[in-house]
Amino acid sequence: MHVKNIDDIESEVLESGSGVSRQMLIGPEEGPNFAMRKLVIEPGGGIPAHTSGAEHEQYVLGGTARVGIGDQVYEVGKGDVVFIPAGEPHWYEAYGEESFELLSVVPNSDNKMVFVK
Amino acid sequence: MHVKNIDDIESEVLESGSGVSRQMLIGPEEGPNFAMRKLVIEPGGGIPAHTSGAEHEQYVLGGTARVGIGDQVYEVGKGDVVFIPAGEPHWYEAYGEESFELLSVVPNSDNKMVFVK
Repeated sequence: MHVKNIDDIESEVLESGSGVSRQMLIGPEEGPNFAMRKLVIEPGGGIPAHTSGAEHEQYVLGGTARVGIGDQVYEVGKGDVVFIPAGEPHWYEAYGEESFELLSVVPNSDNKMVFVK
Repeated sequence: MHVKNIDDIESEVLESGSGVSRQMLIGPEEGPNFAMRKLVIEPGGGIPAHTSGAEHEQYVLGGTARVGIGDQVYEVGKGDVVFIPAGEPHWYEAYGEESFELLSVVPNSDNKMVFVK
């Protein structure tokens, strides 16, 4: 399929997070090399620290969050570009009034989430 | 660099288009597998038909455009997700009042634009 609207794409609750839903905009069965996903995190929600074998390239569409990457913490909002290197522990905590909305692109290979104890 | 804001990223005019500028949000020297770019096309501007050896995964941030992919023409706007298969001729024409704003993710390999006569 060449074109679809985001409002027509199913949203699934991400069980590993709190107040997090995910839409697969272009999944691994469509894109041969990488997947494009949208994450929405409600204020107060988040995703605990985890690693992935693959890098993430992300763009913040709206809302605000703290993002931990390695031992750094960043406050991010609309228009911020986030790069998470492969293997780097990272986490998200949304805050503020609006839901945090993030586009996240990841290679199809080796992108399993592994939670950090 | 883990985080940067889009307003701090240089914008370059895309000579192969008309009224088109491009920002390299995460370039091939930063992302090992794929690059994330933002394209802005002024109303009335566009990019003529071309092919690329690599697929494009795209998300429309704002504005409206006609996008030709193969022998299909689509009218797209905010929230539309666009997939352009490798090797498929494609073009853009922005219309309406606002600039057309597009995130476009492409593999680092084999993504040279070849214009269709």
